[in-house]
Amino acid sequence: MSVAIGFDFGTESVRVVVVDVSNGRVVAQASRDYAHGVIDKELPDGNVKLPPDYALQHPQDWLSDSAAACKEAVTASGVSLDEIVGIGVDFTSCTMMPSFADGTPVCLFERFGRVPLAYPKLWKHHGAKAETDRINAVARERKEPWLDRYGGTIGIEWFFPKVLETLNHEPGVYDITDVWLEAGDWFVWQLVDGPFPKCSTKNLSRSTCQAGYKAQWNRETGFPSPEYFAAVHPKMRNVVSEKMPGRLVAPGVKAGQLSEAAAELFGLRAGIPVSAAIIDAHAGVPGAGVADAGTMVLVMGTSSCHMMNATTDATIPGVAGVVQDGILPGFFGYETGQASVGDAFAWLVETFDLSHGDLNKKAALMPPGSRGVLALDWLNGCRTPLMDGRLSGAFVGITLNTEPAQLYRALMEATAFGVRWIVETIESAGTPVDRFVASGGLPVKSPLLMQIYADVLDREIKLAESDQSVALGAAILGVLASGINGSGPEAAQRTIGAMARQRHDLVYRPNASAVAQYQKLYKMYRTLADKDGAVARTMRELRDLK
Amino acid sequence: MSVAIGFDFGTESVRVVVVDVSNGRVVAQASRDYAHGVIDKELPDGNVKLPPDYALQHPQDWLSDSAAACKEAVTASGVSLDEIVGIGVDFTSCTMMPSFADGTPVCLFERFGRVPLAYPKLWKHHGAKAETDRINAVARERKEPWLDRYGGTIGIEWFFPKVLETLNHEPGVYDITDVWLEAGDWFVWQLVDGPFPKCSTKNLSRSTCQAGYKAQWNRETGFPSPEYFAAVHPKMRNVVSEKMPGRLVAPGVKAGQLSEAAAELFGLRAGIPVSAAIIDAHAGVPGAGVADAGTMVLVMGTSSCHMMNATTDATIPGVAGVVQDGILPGFFGYETGQASVGDAFAWLVETFDLSHGDLNKKAALMPPGSRGVLALDWLNGCRTPLMDGRLSGAFVGITLNTEPAQLYRALMEATAFGVRWIVETIESAGTPVDRFVASGGLPVKSPLLMQIYADVLDREIKLAESDQSVALGAAILGVLASGINGSGPEAAQRTIGAMARQRHDLVYRPNASAVAQYQKLYKMYRTLADKDGAVARTMRELRDLK
Repeated sequence: MSVAIGFDFGTESVRVVVVDVSNGRVVAQASRDYAHGVIDKELPDGNVKLPPDYALQHPQDWLSDSAAACKEAVTASGVSLDEIVGIGVDFTSCTMMPSFADGTPVCLFERFGRVPLAYPKLWKHHGAKAETDRINAVARERKEPWLDRYGGTIGIEWFFPKVLETLNHEPGVYDITDVWLEAGDWFVWQLVDGPFPKCSTKNLSRSTCQAGYKAQWNRETGFPSPEYFAAVHPKMRNVVSEKMPGRLVAPGVKAGQLSEAAAELFGLRAGIPVSAAIIDAHAGVPGAGVADAGTMVLVMGTSSCHMMNATTDATIPGVAGVVQDGILPGFFGYETGQASVGDAFAWLVETFDLSHGDLNKKAALMPPGSRGVLALDWLNGCRTPLMDGRLSGAFVGITLNTEPAQLYRALMEATAFGVRWIVETIESAGTPVDRFVASGGLPVKSPLLMQIYADVLDREIKLAESDQSVALGAAILGVLASGINGSGPEAAQRTIGAMARQRHDLVYRPNASAVAQYQKLYKMYRTLADKDGAVARTMRELRDLK
Repeated sequence: MSVAIGFDFGTESVRVVVVDVSNGRVVAQASRDYAHGVIDKELPDGNVKLPPDYALQHPQDWLSDSAAACKEAVTASGVSLDEIVGIGVDFTSCTMMPSFADGTPVCLFERFGRVPLAYPKLWKHHGAKAETDRINAVARERKEPWLDRYGGTIGIEWFFPKVLETLNHEPGVYDITDVWLEAGDWFVWQLVDGPFPKCSTKNLSRSTCQAGYKAQWNRETGFPSPEYFAAVHPKMRNVVSEKMPGRLVAPGVKAGQLSEAAAELFGLRAGIPVSAAIIDAHAGVPGAGVADAGTMVLVMGTSSCHMMNATTDATIPGVAGVVQDGILPGFFGYETGQASVGDAFAWLVETFDLSHGDLNKKAALMPPGSRGVLALDWLNGCRTPLMDGRLSGAFVGITLNTEPAQLYRALMEATAFGVRWIVETIESAGTPVDRFVASGGLPVKSPLLMQIYADVLDREIKLAESDQSVALGAAILGVLASGINGSGPEAAQRTIGAMARQRHDLVYRPNASAVAQYQKLYKMYRTLADKDGAVARTMRELRDLK
């Protein structure tokens, strides 16, 4: 049996899967919570408190915890080390960090162990508000050609806002940094050339996925120009040439092969081909068995990422990124997102000490419209299409008889309206969205949610067969990098077709009477959600008031 | 010692107070929950289920429970029966009923014991939606002169919608009814001429307060014309002359004196003067020691009623009623209201199993603006100024960190914005609002709420000294009816001045920095609350969708 290994780095934990190359079956898997978890209260020494917007991680966790999970999974799988043909890696993004040229994270250098901004910044670190404004303002002023590709707005969670934040607040960290890079790229670097301090920047690969979606890179023109960076901050003029070494490699293309030292650390054999990294959500596309244009993959969890390959390039206001070869080779990859989905439902449950199961049961008995309650789902801002972090959530239609399950269902319906808005936004630019496949934890947990989505979209929704489609997607990229199935787009399609697919026993189909009701409700949602309407304006004013 | 007795009929219970005429001290009091409570699920026999909008009461409770409370209070007071100089009665309104000419409620007639619409309809009975629309449409079409006096809209809780509802759905009840009347008038009738079946319509008095505010009556032209009623429904042409006997008597004027049989039932002596009834909230004006023009009395409870005497007549869109001698003789009485205040706070507490005390404590620590959450307080519709029962509540500004206490404070602030809107509405018609006195349960329970009101209004707010100002107001009317202090406006002022006043140890004064913040927040509230804006339109559409 030939197998591939997928490393899946989430926000709280890392999962390692061992996957049968012939059919995509997960032979074994293991996971570990990160020893330091999300560092958002204080640094590990316990003496340095963090501001409320901070979310950091400890790079040693990524090595130690993934190595432990890898050993457990491989042992449990019973395969011999020779049967492992490739390794793939997906990672949260933009989770990024400053490193030395030998691969050592700056935060592990004693002098910087108590400096928060020397640590890796997790994707949801929101410390770079002013920097994001600056980066956008300069880009707009200079009419940077890449700006349209990101719907006109660079996000607070992206790469260069986080670099600039460090430069502004800890110039010493910026100065001493040799390499700014994505955590996924750093991990791949450790596999093929490390672990640190054995790495060399000559052997550093950067994923076109992370670079394309989070760092304004594109295949034709590369990263933004020195002139642009100089206008943002004089010291950043040469940030790319001086502090961002590495060659750009697409996911599914070999970044290198497992080093001797890394093989020892992970209990594997040296020489296994390793794919360039991919963003976790994006790995969900191959992992859901989707290898064609026009199928939107809804990766649904605490937040949702909706991705689609298309044959046409387009710049669409509010679509966070369109990147050539960003998801799979041969396509333009579209990324859109909703900043709170499962998180919104969890807010209700946790804030009021309720039960998901109980609320789901009651919500399922209600007709479309949550018995008169309509919500806006922007509890963590609106990503696509408004790209506005100052927006917030809302409930309208509360009466003295309103029950918690109505708010719960209203939040579900609101996220469904949000998806429909995204689909309409993409289609309005001439890019058809033909099919829907859902993956991630939420679709399995909540059949009600999936039925609501089918009814609101008035489309069939299939489910990814695997409940580990992101990790499976990473393993598939390992197979592609190995070359055992050949190379190029056809090999990719064949491999994905063999290793991943959708369930055929469970397809959510729209119900005609619900569709009609949701047609009316969606119009109301859009009225409330108007970018320049009374509600959105009030939300921004409330945010500014604080 | 001379004392007066006040009967205070609330929604759930009746309270009887024995009050020292010389200084307004409550010598003793007692209360009883109604044996049948609010009848909103099924009729007392347990076999007839009620529609969700129904809210009925059992007339026997009003007699039996008030008699028990009266005996207990009088015994506890230690006064001799000769010392009781007068009796006053306040009652919820429009709580109304069909009766026979001998005072027997129609629902107690065996044939109608299982007919819901034969029972008294409580003020919050909302079964007459279509009838309210009809009554308004015909009035507008005919340009009825009295319509302006009610802000252009007759409410669903008022008298004639409830009559028409019965006629439409239970014509047999309508036909057999000899007398349609307010429960307060029915109770006074029982005192002076009953109890039933001993009553005669010759001795029936109707309160100008209830008739003026809830039945489109005014001193100059009486009730609406037969032509109007005929246009509403042919059978209603002569509803006033045929089914509404009685003479119109102002609160504080003697309706009669306690009958022998009633004296026996209540454990009192026959012959005590009894005042015409008054609406419960309106009794709060004299009960708060307010006898002048320009002082608004905020009677705050589950809902709020804000009343003011003025020297000028005015028709103001959205002000529910301006009635000459409606509250006190010699003034035009303005009535405005908010349909959910304490009820809105209770909704949050009860729906999510929280604690008022805990929420109050946390809310008090927040700055104005509830840390970014803004609410609309229309959980039971908007009374003044929009007069629209289809409106509902809303929250805007919810984030993943929003806590219950933010929603709680946001509801408090929203009700304060609602009062400010009412004040601005009245003042825009040229009627100044100079002073504020708060009474009812809420002001005592929540100092935070009162401070928010003072900050939002940017005015001082005094509190009624008595925590039973409504019941005290009823007793004061008993004194006025007795004539022991003389008669006419000056006697009324003197009596009120002696028996009721405001606290001087606790005055809520606006805080300058909070006032400035609330100025901004109030603007946002008004933007969201726009009558024809996106939020209000959506609320109406949501209501229609159900």
